[in-house]
Amino acid sequence: MPAVPADPTVVSPAAARALFRAGLATPTAGWCAGFTQANLIIVPRAQAFDVLLFATRNPQACPILGVLDAGETSGPLLVDGDIRSDVGRYRVYENGVLVAEPTGLEEWWRADLMTFIVGCSFTFEAALQEAGIAIAHIKQGTNVPMYRTNVRCAPAGAMSGPLVVSMRPIPADRVADAVRITSQYPAVHGAPVHVGDPAALGIDLDRPDFGDVVVVGPGEVPVFWACGVTPQAAVMESRPALAIGHAPGHMLITDARDADYLVARYT
Amino acid sequence: MPAVPADPTVVSPAAARALFRAGLATPTAGWCAGFTQANLIIVPRAQAFDVLLFATRNPQACPILGVLDAGETSGPLLVDGDIRSDVGRYRVYENGVLVAEPTGLEEWWRADLMTFIVGCSFTFEAALQEAGIAIAHIKQGTNVPMYRTNVRCAPAGAMSGPLVVSMRPIPADRVADAVRITSQYPAVHGAPVHVGDPAALGIDLDRPDFGDVVVVGPGEVPVFWACGVTPQAAVMESRPALAIGHAPGHMLITDARDADYLVARYT
Repeated sequence: MPAVPADPTVVSPAAARALFRAGLATPTAGWCAGFTQANLIIVPRAQAFDVLLFATRNPQACPILGVLDAGETSGPLLVDGDIRSDVGRYRVYENGVLVAEPTGLEEWWRADLMTFIVGCSFTFEAALQEAGIAIAHIKQGTNVPMYRTNVRCAPAGAMSGPLVVSMRPIPADRVADAVRITSQYPAVHGAPVHVGDPAALGIDLDRPDFGDVVVVGPGEVPVFWACGVTPQAAVMESRPALAIGHAPGHMLITDARDADYLVARYT
Repeated sequence: MPAVPADPTVVSPAAARALFRAGLATPTAGWCAGFTQANLIIVPRAQAFDVLLFATRNPQACPILGVLDAGETSGPLLVDGDIRSDVGRYRVYENGVLVAEPTGLEEWWRADLMTFIVGCSFTFEAALQEAGIAIAHIKQGTNVPMYRTNVRCAPAGAMSGPLVVSMRPIPADRVADAVRITSQYPAVHGAPVHVGDPAALGIDLDRPDFGDVVVVGPGEVPVFWACGVTPQAAVMESRPALAIGHAPGHMLITDARDADYLVARYT
């Protein structure tokens, strides 16, 4: 397995994808500064309409940045890339059960698989950092904590499930700034869905469903954004025969730039 | 046919829909101040995936605000409404050819029809007016001019076609304000796609493909926004057996508020 680069922030997306293709598997927060990271949900064509409709009806959790047609393995978001190998670690679900976490999809790929590339909140973390708002999980070198909530998504066909959120502790006097900044990126989850009250979402901060625990320090407030792992939670509940996602925090690094998703443009 | 109300700006969405249900057919620009108007594209379930994927790949032209399942005739965007009757005038296409412009869909409705409710630039016109930017077609009491451009949309399955834009003349010293304001509404077409050069889009301003001519006065610049008639242009080119839209400018008036689509929220 290749080593993690000394400074992952300056690696190009193509170089990062080459490392993951060669077998590296590590959370990607802070990698490839300025370039957009994304969630994946890959399903057979027969299930694709329900997944796309679920995303359309839950745009804050599932903002679609791109769709690869059945059998397609690259596209404008990953030029010269290969969706079967360019993510560090995948999750394969059969009938809603996690059956494998491979570093490549050679064994699993089929010509009828369609790939949905879904926005990720890592996109606006750079903008928060530029505003002087530290991101705890990047400072700690861990994965962002993610939680299943008691909020139900709008269902679509066979797909239903809970809203999944990511959590970042924000100093109380910067919460308004964090809202203002992230609302400018609606195509990558946008403004927080909830601020300050984990119990109201049915969340125990010490028990993330995905990712790592991050401590909320004195004077800090837990702030929750809709998370692109939401389609995987719906897959676990809705139990399609086959579905594939990324391992939470191990994102697809695309050739799009974070600035492309600032409000003015998301085509 | 009911008369146009003396002041359509103060009519409630439910009252407006009742007038259209009773047979009124008139362009809706400026109606029901503060409430969101929308484009329609209605297709059989068998074509719905291609339409939804087309919208997903062309979000600036086709931002989806809501989807009614096959056979559903109302939903959260039109509470106690009926999608078969609550628009002033519809357009029915068979094999891509406009065959009827009825004021109701009783003759055409089928249980397998799915309705896609698509954002409309009328939503941000109120914000422009509040900033002191006059909207020429509202002042003139006519329909906004819309044009097929030489820009191709990203295709999806059987659906392909040109980008359709709406045009508003904006004083040269307010163009930047118009960009800044409308970019805050990405879920209803957002920022302009083009400013100031109709020829580059293959457009003759005197020959709109839909709506009415609006004169660009001295000191004004023509500004172009992606338009929700785009799916109908794709229908005309892609020729599905059946598709139904609204007559351009005769929008669905929803119960959502324009403020809901300001950047912070579009779920």
